[in-house]
Amino acid sequence: MGFWKSLFGSSNGASAQTLAPANGSIGTALSISSNGRGSKSAQSKITFSKDREIDLYELEELCDAVGWSRRPIRKVKKALKHSFIVVSMWEQRGSYNRLIGFSRATSDHTFNATIWDVVVHPDFQGQGLGKALMKQIIKELRREDISNITLFADPHVVNFYRDLGFMPDPEGIKGMFWYPNFR
Amino acid sequence: MGFWKSLFGSSNGASAQTLAPANGSIGTALSISSNGRGSKSAQSKITFSKDREIDLYELEELCDAVGWSRRPIRKVKKALKHSFIVVSMWEQRGSYNRLIGFSRATSDHTFNATIWDVVVHPDFQGQGLGKALMKQIIKELRREDISNITLFADPHVVNFYRDLGFMPDPEGIKGMFWYPNFR
Repeated sequence: MGFWKSLFGSSNGASAQTLAPANGSIGTALSISSNGRGSKSAQSKITFSKDREIDLYELEELCDAVGWSRRPIRKVKKALKHSFIVVSMWEQRGSYNRLIGFSRATSDHTFNATIWDVVVHPDFQGQGLGKALMKQIIKELRREDISNITLFADPHVVNFYRDLGFMPDPEGIKGMFWYPNFR
Repeated sequence: MGFWKSLFGSSNGASAQTLAPANGSIGTALSISSNGRGSKSAQSKITFSKDREIDLYELEELCDAVGWSRRPIRKVKKALKHSFIVVSMWEQRGSYNRLIGFSRATSDHTFNATIWDVVVHPDFQGQGLGKALMKQIIKELRREDISNITLFADPHVVNFYRDLGFMPDPEGIKGMFWYPNFR
């Protein structure tokens, strides 16, 4: 976490330090039931979307809730516009939708994709929703016939991603980050 | 190398198994002189471009020369179209330009970029041209104000990228790849 904050300030990888344990389940539908700790009652539903418009201030509030550093709204807007896929997760209560999770991927639309900014609101962690969110974005990338899905994981979420089918350093391949003055 | 070929078939990371030792140098100009082993005479010049149109068959020949697996031309075309930056390296001999190196990056145009498909023709390795090529793409990404430049490196080129300022696994962050059936 410190890495993303201190080194890049305004960017977060798939650090997902907030992710729920991978003990949830989701069917093929985009909608599942939930009794989230964040719910005032059980009358809420969790939904996923790759199309729904996202209030960028609500998104920054979500990132704020998990301790990520603030990012200029205009930059977030540009980054989302140029992301290949954005998957958002919502608590639906009647006609009210609250943004509770988010992930996005950059891609060449063909061979490779890299997943960034995976986040689940603290009130909704511990229910497998992080896993459900990841399954949605993987499903969307596979639907687009992307064969090489990658991410950069903080140490404490490596096992979370491993359970989802991600392998660290396959055949010794190293994820590397550029530092202007590193030698 | 086997990884990129066998696992994804049609995609290559920044494996760059062909890269020249990082002993070359380049100034700020886009043009440097070279007495490449591939040259029939010394009357050639190495140039870089991020705009020049690339013959996709010539590109596949280049990738073929370093042992990468063939990729459908229509997919390569789509991937290049949706890459944020493509930097090509050329041997210029009179009015004739030969494609001798290539790299590209996916990006959200704002925070993150990931470099893919770094390749230098075997005839032109060992002259620091891989380093020069990488410096060009880094320069272009920095010019676009991208702060987080990443890549996935095969084990034998980790030191090559380290010399360019890339750090493997900073703070334990792991590069991870998704496999459909991996558990």
